[in-house]
Amino acid sequence: MPSPAPPSLHAVIMAGGAGTRFWPASRKRRPKQFLPLCHGRILLAATIDRLAGLCPPDQVWIVTNPQQAKAIGRLLPGFRRDRIVVEPEARDTAPCVALATATIAAVDPGATMVVLPADHVIEPEAEFHRMLRRGAAIAATGALVTFGVQPTHPATGYGYIECGAAHDDGEPRAFAARRFREKPDLATARQFVQQGGFLWNSGIFVWTVDSIRRAMQHGDPALGEAAERMLAAARTGQRAALNRAFRRAPKTSIDYAVMERAERVVTVEATVRWDDVGAFPAIAAVGTADDAGNHALLAGGAAQLALQSEGNIVYAEGRRTVALFGVRDLVVVAVGDAVLVCPKDRAGDLKAMVEHVRAAGRDDLL
Amino acid sequence: MPSPAPPSLHAVIMAGGAGTRFWPASRKRRPKQFLPLCHGRILLAATIDRLAGLCPPDQVWIVTNPQQAKAIGRLLPGFRRDRIVVEPEARDTAPCVALATATIAAVDPGATMVVLPADHVIEPEAEFHRMLRRGAAIAATGALVTFGVQPTHPATGYGYIECGAAHDDGEPRAFAARRFREKPDLATARQFVQQGGFLWNSGIFVWTVDSIRRAMQHGDPALGEAAERMLAAARTGQRAALNRAFRRAPKTSIDYAVMERAERVVTVEATVRWDDVGAFPAIAAVGTADDAGNHALLAGGAAQLALQSEGNIVYAEGRRTVALFGVRDLVVVAVGDAVLVCPKDRAGDLKAMVEHVRAAGRDDLL
Repeated sequence: MPSPAPPSLHAVIMAGGAGTRFWPASRKRRPKQFLPLCHGRILLAATIDRLAGLCPPDQVWIVTNPQQAKAIGRLLPGFRRDRIVVEPEARDTAPCVALATATIAAVDPGATMVVLPADHVIEPEAEFHRMLRRGAAIAATGALVTFGVQPTHPATGYGYIECGAAHDDGEPRAFAARRFREKPDLATARQFVQQGGFLWNSGIFVWTVDSIRRAMQHGDPALGEAAERMLAAARTGQRAALNRAFRRAPKTSIDYAVMERAERVVTVEATVRWDDVGAFPAIAAVGTADDAGNHALLAGGAAQLALQSEGNIVYAEGRRTVALFGVRDLVVVAVGDAVLVCPKDRAGDLKAMVEHVRAAGRDDLL
Repeated sequence: MPSPAPPSLHAVIMAGGAGTRFWPASRKRRPKQFLPLCHGRILLAATIDRLAGLCPPDQVWIVTNPQQAKAIGRLLPGFRRDRIVVEPEARDTAPCVALATATIAAVDPGATMVVLPADHVIEPEAEFHRMLRRGAAIAATGALVTFGVQPTHPATGYGYIECGAAHDDGEPRAFAARRFREKPDLATARQFVQQGGFLWNSGIFVWTVDSIRRAMQHGDPALGEAAERMLAAARTGQRAALNRAFRRAPKTSIDYAVMERAERVVTVEATVRWDDVGAFPAIAAVGTADDAGNHALLAGGAAQLALQSEGNIVYAEGRRTVALFGVRDLVVVAVGDAVLVCPKDRAGDLKAMVEHVRAAGRDDLL
């Protein structure tokens, strides 16, 4: 039987991202975490549900921006409003973590925090819990814990963690994190994969409130100071002071400001199926498929009809039908007032199309 | 100066067709002639307007089915309701011509009739008038007149007219029609084009009421008898008898039942740009184009944005944008509740997709 979760385990879901790689399904007001990309369920809702049994519901927090906070209230009416932490502005992940830490430390100074993105698909749930409990146990020793995914190919879209010595002989395996490597070029990525001992950085972390506070002060004193001010303001419920301190925190990432400089980082191997659902072709893993390998994610009464067509990806919402005739390896998206058609192997470059839409003066479509 | 049109020139627009080659823009209740395929104007409206100055407005008739008669009333409120001739059922073109002949002969026994499809694009208008007046002058001598288009390629989708001796030395050129050849296979079509003397059958005719009545009796006595009964009923305003006679007319085409068997058929060379707008790629000739050869026909606020894309055809209606990214030579259609994507060189086979939609039980989309 798995050991019960420590009573003080909190989860912080980072839901601030905009994301252009799912345009036109995702828009400014409807980022990727609100798309039904987890077997038809909204990613954010699936992320919350995935934590059930690991953290008490009132210890699950969402950090987000004001626009999305409203949308969360509308889309997830059951989620406690006072567990939505609103960033006064977007300032990258380090201030976001500082704000979450201050908010949690003010109510539970002995907390252990899981920090995780809102928009990944992770399965199965039981293994996800096992892996996080393993991380929480290591975090209790004072380490910052990351989770690393065994690379399946030389991806250039992920950061890599270079693993050092085994942390212990527990399960899942854990290693001293020797070095963080930002998104590499293809040659470097190939070398990482051939060499072994490199894991993809999943963007999931576990640490105690004490450890992350210390690590912020150590890694980036300006960040550490802002974090301490946020905590002081949170303890006394001074919202304005909290926001002021947040705005003064350096605009930087938690990886760069803290993780790469921290003294003790341990990487636990992620023993789950992990999918960051990076672009439309990821639908192949979470949608439905026909015999010809046409994958579809259809919501709100949408349908697909394919004839003499193979290997396509369709994403459609609302009462409309996408008909494919004689086409191959395309992405076809039909959502709201926009239709997108692009080859599957260009779907990762969709940002260029979004820039083109912007340059055409069609911000209304973004 | 062109000679004035004979005062008794009537035009009969045949608007009964369904047409699957523009699905999902065209549907059961909205056949091709209702699509804005003539530089953004509805084909039927453009066909009517093209006759202005040739026939008096009250001598322009539309033969159609009951459903489309209603739609015509809605879409063309200025068109005289009593000039819409409603076929009690679809019975191919021979009964359609007989019904139109009876209706016109009842009010104007000395009439000359132009019979033409509702869904072609023909330009320029002045040349179209000149060509029809030439046909009307020849029809006045008792011949059945067809119009033939100089083939630009060995098309297999059109019937061909084999030309014999020159009819006279007038302009545009006119020839005795030696033989009608139905849609040929590619080898035969190539032979026609190489050999010369073959013209595409444009589906436009001119004849006098007397000539066509005689030719129907000669070519297909059952048709001729039905036509005479229709005329008797039309003269006395007996609608039920007219419909009864129509329903007894053989279900056959005017080409097969009459033209191929007629004694004197003259083909006038069509000196216009003639486009039967057979499938979506025809939009290249009537829509807008960007520098990369992406052609679009956009109605009702629709837009197109193309990036790194070439040679595509977009048809969209309503407030929606079709975004093309990195694609080539596709047809993308977004109308109402359906989106279609197919390669340009498969657009002519769209009937197969329509059959697939029907087989999938989605008659609601047709």
